[in-house]
Amino acid sequence: MTIIVPMKRSEDRALDQLRTVAIERDVNAFAEGSALIKVGNTHVLCTASVDERVPKWMMGTGKGWVTAEYSMLPRSTSERSDREAVRGKQGGRTVEIQRLIGRSLRAVMDMEVLGERQIILDCDVLQADGGTRCASITGAYVALAIACEGLLKQKKIKKNPLLAHVAAVSVGVVSGVPVLDLDYKEDSGADVDANIIMTSEGKFVELQSTAEHDPFTPETLQQLIALGQKGVTELVARQREVLAHS
Amino acid sequence: MTIIVPMKRSEDRALDQLRTVAIERDVNAFAEGSALIKVGNTHVLCTASVDERVPKWMMGTGKGWVTAEYSMLPRSTSERSDREAVRGKQGGRTVEIQRLIGRSLRAVMDMEVLGERQIILDCDVLQADGGTRCASITGAYVALAIACEGLLKQKKIKKNPLLAHVAAVSVGVVSGVPVLDLDYKEDSGADVDANIIMTSEGKFVELQSTAEHDPFTPETLQQLIALGQKGVTELVARQREVLAHS
Amino acid sequence: MTIIVPMKRSEDRALDQLRTVAIERDVNAFAEGSALIKVGNTHVLCTASVDERVPKWMMGTGKGWVTAEYSMLPRSTSERSDREAVRGKQGGRTVEIQRLIGRSLRAVMDMEVLGERQIILDCDVLQADGGTRCASITGAYVALAIACEGLLKQKKIKKNPLLAHVAAVSVGVVSGVPVLDLDYKEDSGADVDANIIMTSEGKFVELQSTAEHDPFTPETLQQLIALGQKGVTELVARQREVLAHS
Amino acid sequence: MTIIVPMKRSEDRALDQLRTVAIERDVNAFAEGSALIKVGNTHVLCTASVDERVPKWMMGTGKGWVTAEYSMLPRSTSERSDREAVRGKQGGRTVEIQRLIGRSLRAVMDMEVLGERQIILDCDVLQADGGTRCASITGAYVALAIACEGLLKQKKIKKNPLLAHVAAVSVGVVSGVPVLDLDYKEDSGADVDANIIMTSEGKFVELQSTAEHDPFTPETLQQLIALGQKGVTELVARQREVLAHS
Amino acid sequence: MTIIVPMKRSEDRALDQLRTVAIERDVNAFAEGSALIKVGNTHVLCTASVDERVPKWMMGTGKGWVTAEYSMLPRSTSERSDREAVRGKQGGRTVEIQRLIGRSLRAVMDMEVLGERQIILDCDVLQADGGTRCASITGAYVALAIACEGLLKQKKIKKNPLLAHVAAVSVGVVSGVPVLDLDYKEDSGADVDANIIMTSEGKFVELQSTAEHDPFTPETLQQLIALGQKGVTELVARQREVLAHS
Amino acid sequence: MTIIVPMKRSEDRALDQLRTVAIERDVNAFAEGSALIKVGNTHVLCTASVDERVPKWMMGTGKGWVTAEYSMLPRSTSERSDREAVRGKQGGRTVEIQRLIGRSLRAVMDMEVLGERQIILDCDVLQADGGTRCASITGAYVALAIACEGLLKQKKIKKNPLLAHVAAVSVGVVSGVPVLDLDYKEDSGADVDANIIMTSEGKFVELQSTAEHDPFTPETLQQLIALGQKGVTELVARQREVLAHS
Repeated sequence: MTIIVPMKRSEDRALDQLRTVAIERDVNAFAEGSALIKVGNTHVLCTASVDERVPKWMMGTGKGWVTAEYSMLPRSTSERSDREAVRGKQGGRTVEIQRLIGRSLRAVMDMEVLGERQIILDCDVLQADGGTRCASITGAYVALAIACEGLLKQKKIKKNPLLAHVAAVSVGVVSGVPVLDLDYKEDSGADVDANIIMTSEGKFVELQSTAEHDPFTPETLQQLIALGQKGVTELVARQREVLAHS
Repeated sequence: MTIIVPMKRSEDRALDQLRTVAIERDVNAFAEGSALIKVGNTHVLCTASVDERVPKWMMGTGKGWVTAEYSMLPRSTSERSDREAVRGKQGGRTVEIQRLIGRSLRAVMDMEVLGERQIILDCDVLQADGGTRCASITGAYVALAIACEGLLKQKKIKKNPLLAHVAAVSVGVVSGVPVLDLDYKEDSGADVDANIIMTSEGKFVELQSTAEHDPFTPETLQQLIALGQKGVTELVARQREVLAHS
Repeated sequence: MTIIVPMKRSEDRALDQLRTVAIERDVNAFAEGSALIKVGNTHVLCTASVDERVPKWMMGTGKGWVTAEYSMLPRSTSERSDREAVRGKQGGRTVEIQRLIGRSLRAVMDMEVLGERQIILDCDVLQADGGTRCASITGAYVALAIACEGLLKQKKIKKNPLLAHVAAVSVGVVSGVPVLDLDYKEDSGADVDANIIMTSEGKFVELQSTAEHDPFTPETLQQLIALGQKGVTELVARQREVLAHS
Repeated sequence: MTIIVPMKRSEDRALDQLRTVAIERDVNAFAEGSALIKVGNTHVLCTASVDERVPKWMMGTGKGWVTAEYSMLPRSTSERSDREAVRGKQGGRTVEIQRLIGRSLRAVMDMEVLGERQIILDCDVLQADGGTRCASITGAYVALAIACEGLLKQKKIKKNPLLAHVAAVSVGVVSGVPVLDLDYKEDSGADVDANIIMTSEGKFVELQSTAEHDPFTPETLQQLIALGQKGVTELVARQREVLAHS
Repeated sequence: MTIIVPMKRSEDRALDQLRTVAIERDVNAFAEGSALIKVGNTHVLCTASVDERVPKWMMGTGKGWVTAEYSMLPRSTSERSDREAVRGKQGGRTVEIQRLIGRSLRAVMDMEVLGERQIILDCDVLQADGGTRCASITGAYVALAIACEGLLKQKKIKKNPLLAHVAAVSVGVVSGVPVLDLDYKEDSGADVDANIIMTSEGKFVELQSTAEHDPFTPETLQQLIALGQKGVTELVARQREVLAHS
Repeated sequence: MTIIVPMKRSEDRALDQLRTVAIERDVNAFAEGSALIKVGNTHVLCTASVDERVPKWMMGTGKGWVTAEYSMLPRSTSERSDREAVRGKQGGRTVEIQRLIGRSLRAVMDMEVLGERQIILDCDVLQADGGTRCASITGAYVALAIACEGLLKQKKIKKNPLLAHVAAVSVGVVSGVPVLDLDYKEDSGADVDANIIMTSEGKFVELQSTAEHDPFTPETLQQLIALGQKGVTELVARQREVLAHS
């Protein structure tokens, strides 16, 4: 199903086409898992750090935990933003995004299999051209999967705690037309903006759909969901490729 | 469509039934608009404050702005929580919720009609038994509508800037069954948790659906949307009643 | 002793007359004690939360502790104020008031009878028209007394740790004349402003008297004290009434 | 009236006797006014800084402003305390004290005569042995008076804006007996603790009296006031001496 | 002068040998200048952002300003560190380093030629294996030089404001022997640690030499300076190479 | 070697002459060690506080720790600065200086002899006329030495953990000429500014030399080092004098 509409997109893409996706694994010499994901001009460095201590409220439960932090470098964007460490706190958008990343990855993790340890996912955006939260989730999955492989090799866990892949993509209504994988320019002018986070089994982990200007109809929602399903399927394929070659 | 299932809910409700909803208007002697909304044991005091100054980045645009702040009293919950002013910052959940409330109300407001002024919606949760963000949106709409009536009466604006009602309700999957308007106990054990924010015209303003444990199927998503549409329709009816009697 | 002077006060009160006082108990479904106190247009929601853990520095002493927090909702006043959680800290006035509330209630509490547990009093001002700190103390006493009744009923303590009632009232010199229970308008223009906090036994817990403009004579101080004694006596009577009916 | 009671006080003082008071003026080479006050082992360095800009909310009023800041050096006390700049905020006690100092000095200042400028009083406690807030007020008055002399000499103001002296002293009930000017050891064990701030004209600027343990009777209050009046009279005499010799 | 000592260094280096240095320019699509510098396993992403507004205190002076910010990604090190934005402030080490970077680059910049604009240098450490502050300075120079080239091409400035190259290298005494360019392991056990920041003209911009354990003799200082001069000369050569090819 | 140049310095000093130095010991009644150092118009109050607890990361090592905090009183300077406790954090310069003071004193301390306890050095600048960090180090040494004497007398340690004296002095290039001990006016206009921290054995503890405007030659560096050596030798003599008389 390739939709053809007279609308000029970056990389001359079709409306239902992802930007060029490149995932490089093992980019950090120290982290238990790492990946640099590039979705068009959006570049996110994802690391997974295994911490043998869980947060206090989990101690003695026998279960593990996965959490995430997200940050944009000050000049990842076309205008430089203030550094959050200088402003003295993380902004609302940052907190919202890192909570989303954490929830999304936890949804595919069997915490009992992981055992009483924590994995921290750091998603640092080196360059931002729209869709940074989705790229973070898709890349963090790869870093997390590598960290789990490592735990298996070291025999710290008995089986892989990952129950499925998870990947995310943005969809939206731009100039009245539903499109897949919005870049920054499209996102800025979108009527509706949605993030679809799904597993390799075709189930939803999270769905967030927001009317930026005008409320949208149930029909539009269905179209956006279909586009998101297509995008996630392709992203999961990329994850499989990069994870197959260590 | 009344679903009947052998599951005990608070107030002996059916699965697709809202808790008792009571909205009292004009509860604050000073605010330009105010409402106390009670949805079961969830009580939220909502005020709308008209500020003739807009944020700096809007000055000279001729357009207005609507923003929201959200807070829970420390003992609104069964266990007392720390006061955010004491901890020195708003938590991630608070920031996420107040951003949602602001976006939701802006979606039904014609900012050009409002003109260069700001309306601040304060949603303070006096008692919390699940669904506080949805009750906040539903109640804040009433406070906002009263403030707009006031601006019209004072002839500061020429027509009502509100384009439609907006209301919100939580839906979710509890014990494997989709239900409407979860209380705290149901919410804590839900498999899927969603917030449906819709207008009186049946359009979506925002849809957030999260797998708390297991990812969910597209079919489940459709069922939740249907329940949410029913709930919002009833909440809009309550808003109309309370606004009809000043 | 009813003083009659040609000065127009809210509610057409005499100079030594309190505003209408209404105290409603058990207004919160979760707190161990709660009361909503209304003194004219000043409304404060007070809750008492029993915490079985004392602060670290008290552990092992066998004694209990009572502390208080105070906050005004942003739109409790005629002009909206910034939310302290947003500003990132409690203001000087807030800290001063909540320390006063805590000290006042501790003065009537036998900490050994209370035993090693803490009671936290939250005083949240829903609407402010002067005298919020005094209303908070008077209302917090009711919430605290209810919490103590509960501890007795649950046999966690052997006798009531409360040694006396405590109540508070503002007095001041307005237009050169000493008056009882100032509302916001009177308070703003007062020459002298005092808060009298006394027990049901006629003893002082705290006395704060401040010259807002001109220093005041020892004679004026005596007049203010006499007014305060009268006000506290009446407030204690109201506390007794509401506590008699559970 | 010298009360004689069999109770051992520091410096072998009578119950109504001040500790040794020494005030040194002009101790800072840069400040417009400065004084180092020593009351027994309590040493406070007070400076008055004239700022030709008033706070924003005063601009254009033609009136001036006096404000104060208070701090204790970390090792001013027998146990080292954390530095407030390291903790990241001023504590509640600090804020309460500096507000009191500011109010006290403003009460004897004619703001119209001062004109649209601000005087900032910094009270830094080099050594603390009880009564630091009272010593700060008494010393800050001297620094302020020197700064006003300077403004007069420079002809920036036409007459002295100070309407009277202001000084402060602590009084309290120790071992059941009212005493004047408590040192730290007495203060720690006091039943009642009061601060009396009065002018050279015998009027009250502020009176704060607190039951540390048991509420106190109206008779005790009268005794404390009398002691305070005696102490303030003596402190004003010392201020006059030091100000007479520049 | 190649010193040969029986000590095993990373990359089998001689004592006076730098680690492998690689500088890649134009790695960021948005910044006016950017470089990724790799010195062994230390990787720093440097961007230069031109801001046409100077800080307030410089307005109207006709001069420009250069400032720097420094940060380490949480998992740039072998153990994950807390994110400074989460902790709510920049640590002492961070502040010290970014002040050093700013000073170093300002020393080779003619601020009058730059004109009233600011260049902000962001140095984000992606991976850290010792010498991050020196790599930041060396890399930031390249980013700054590219930004200046851009200003020249756009004719915003008339000549290049850079007066010389600046580069930095660490030297130290390890196991009693002076060495050039310490990696993390060497740095952790060094007796003396110095950072030498010099220009391409052989002048010092900054010299910081610290005894980590035992104080050091003037002779050792001279040896360290000689090593630093050698290292900086080689680093400047690399800067020239990468800047020659745009 | 007295250099004579036609340049007017404060106190009519020669270029290689220190300002008048006065050190008073035991100025604080509570601290384990204290000294008030005056170097010209720069006055710093230094206290040493012995804390029998070490920081967590040192527990069980059997070794001690020395750390420092630095602060300037708001009106220590000719213009009043904001108080850091009010601004809510220590500035970059403060952090940099207190880290330097701590490192400098640790360099002459045998931590095993000190044993598992911490000494905190507080350096509070009462008046600032240049060279406050150097005066702080020189004065803190005296406070630290007194505290060590006390530990010896109390037999908490078996021998003196201080291995040598440490003192510090600023040197710089002013109007093209190297000078010793810059006051504020000289420092503000210096081309090069250096701080030389040395032991009584003629070894370096730290050397920081910064080009404020133009980079400087190796020859200039050598001249500054020689001046610093002379200054430190004289300061150590003053430390010996004051420590000889307890």
